[in-house]
Amino acid sequence: MNEPVYNFGAGPAMLPAAVLEQVQGELLDWQGRGISVMEMSHRSADYMQIIAEAEQDLRDLMHIPANYKVLFLQGGATLQFAMVPLNLLRGHARASYVQTGIWSEKALQEARRFAEVEIAASNADRQARLVPPQSEWRVSQDTAYVHIAGNETIGGVEFDFIPDLGDVPLVSDASSHILSRPVDVSRFGLIYAGAQKNIGPAGLTLVIVREDLLGHAPTNTPTMLDYAVQAKEGSMHNTPPTFAIYVAGLVFKWLKNNGGLQAMAERNQRKAALLYQAIDASGGFYSNPVEARNRSWMNVPFFLKEAGMNGAFLQEAEARHLLQLKGHRLLGGMRASIYNAMPEAGVQALVDFMRDFARQHG
Amino acid sequence: MNEPVYNFGAGPAMLPAAVLEQVQGELLDWQGRGISVMEMSHRSADYMQIIAEAEQDLRDLMHIPANYKVLFLQGGATLQFAMVPLNLLRGHARASYVQTGIWSEKALQEARRFAEVEIAASNADRQARLVPPQSEWRVSQDTAYVHIAGNETIGGVEFDFIPDLGDVPLVSDASSHILSRPVDVSRFGLIYAGAQKNIGPAGLTLVIVREDLLGHAPTNTPTMLDYAVQAKEGSMHNTPPTFAIYVAGLVFKWLKNNGGLQAMAERNQRKAALLYQAIDASGGFYSNPVEARNRSWMNVPFFLKEAGMNGAFLQEAEARHLLQLKGHRLLGGMRASIYNAMPEAGVQALVDFMRDFARQHG
Repeated sequence: MNEPVYNFGAGPAMLPAAVLEQVQGELLDWQGRGISVMEMSHRSADYMQIIAEAEQDLRDLMHIPANYKVLFLQGGATLQFAMVPLNLLRGHARASYVQTGIWSEKALQEARRFAEVEIAASNADRQARLVPPQSEWRVSQDTAYVHIAGNETIGGVEFDFIPDLGDVPLVSDASSHILSRPVDVSRFGLIYAGAQKNIGPAGLTLVIVREDLLGHAPTNTPTMLDYAVQAKEGSMHNTPPTFAIYVAGLVFKWLKNNGGLQAMAERNQRKAALLYQAIDASGGFYSNPVEARNRSWMNVPFFLKEAGMNGAFLQEAEARHLLQLKGHRLLGGMRASIYNAMPEAGVQALVDFMRDFARQHG
Repeated sequence: MNEPVYNFGAGPAMLPAAVLEQVQGELLDWQGRGISVMEMSHRSADYMQIIAEAEQDLRDLMHIPANYKVLFLQGGATLQFAMVPLNLLRGHARASYVQTGIWSEKALQEARRFAEVEIAASNADRQARLVPPQSEWRVSQDTAYVHIAGNETIGGVEFDFIPDLGDVPLVSDASSHILSRPVDVSRFGLIYAGAQKNIGPAGLTLVIVREDLLGHAPTNTPTMLDYAVQAKEGSMHNTPPTFAIYVAGLVFKWLKNNGGLQAMAERNQRKAALLYQAIDASGGFYSNPVEARNRSWMNVPFFLKEAGMNGAFLQEAEARHLLQLKGHRLLGGMRASIYNAMPEAGVQALVDFMRDFARQHG
């Protein structure tokens, strides 16, 4: 295709064009070695350099303190829903969860297999439209940790603050907003993220964990699910997802070459503002229910005045090369995911189309 | 590089050139959709077709009976070392393991976290040179299953028979020989394999499991580790490793286009015979200690008469574009992995080099 294609899928999501072009260019022959990265031993000197650079570039981008380990794992955020309690209960019976939507709910349901779950706060009584302010939270003193979903990918609800919990470790599912803006990692005990939104291909899961939280998994924990083992062995207790890590490393270099997370934040804020303004200025043709301060910069769910027009909207959008706008099946409507790889021109093309569609069908 | 490069790495390993070329060709734009497979929603119609075709092609190749599920998972064989006992104990206290080398040993050590492990047979008293014949095996009546490593990737020891265990399910780690020859799947309860040898890129794990063995995991099993959940949701309880599955699917099509597993078996047997003959005819310059009937068709460890020549051997091999011949660190020496993707010309190039090297240094 010659016309630009903009892919608003929530994940697996759009990757930076420059990254995909580099992957394609060196797919058969990485830097003159005559083999693909897919064909390299994970313990070869070349591959050890690829993974070490990926980690260092991520550390540079996020200013990850030295007392945090970076792990390249598998299984997605969903496996983290189990690994977090398995590793972080540390003898406690209870863990606390903040309920802000479908993903935080999934996390706490899985935790119930291993722990007594305390709901520290919930937005369920307010149609999941906001993040409950910390003044509402009730966290027991004997809790092991507090878990949040920093950005709810389905509901489009994003934290506008980092909770202050004293000595209780804060754990965040950052799958859909990691690397979208600077964040103070030292305020968290553990951050995890599936790669397939803002990092790279599906099949890679990133974990950033403070060292003192390692080494507390019970002895009947599967070895692969013990952060301490993965940390000690540099994410190579067995063969890691080598190609996905390589692509993620290229994304990290692309971010550095494009001004890092501060530049991303400014661009992402502009993109989000453009789209929310188009929704709010549509006279009710489009709507987004989230409170202004918690509107996600990354995932923008929106609804047409009449659901009967959804099919026409998607069909006409696709004809203009605006792809994967269908909302999550649990919510219906539309969702535009506008991760780092989405250029401002893509959001502009979307709002132009939305205006045209509203004019035609309004 | 213009001269052919032959990559003898044990895994991640060589992939068929035709597959890599197709991946490269459609990396930016899969079949005119304007996006990469890496950027597709796993629930899109296009991707659902990719994964369905991959499964069907695998079923065709291996003649997988209808009462077996095919699962595309993550975590490698090492996570299966835990998932097998978690799912297959079915209320039993005990599971039986046949010890034939380093990988079967790793599997049984992990199983000890969850079960009482019975060593049904072992070759440890015979320098791991063979598979103990079934007449030696002692399997308790109340055991949950018997686990074997069908091919020991490090030791190069391969089963020359399928054990007959009556009603006791047979479980095989087939990571390094799956798809190398036809196999009667109905003789197994469960077969698993990391992808990065004979299937596709690292980060994908294949499980073939008989349906009646599903649904017995204890309630405190992490959801992602429950085969029944993965089977029910078509390997999409969460986002699967979409790109790795796509590449595996292309490998399956390549196998079908090249005569299927019978043709692979004939070719693999010729390749292995050529290499073992070169070793045996070297007058002791090269040696392989495995009993003839259990010599692996896929992984051929061999040793130079003098270990002091290892460095020169590897250096000169690399100069002739024969890569990753260094043996596993636990065994030393050399290892040539000659999976399906290794053409006969590659093995010929290796034995030519071995003959030249022996002449020069013998």
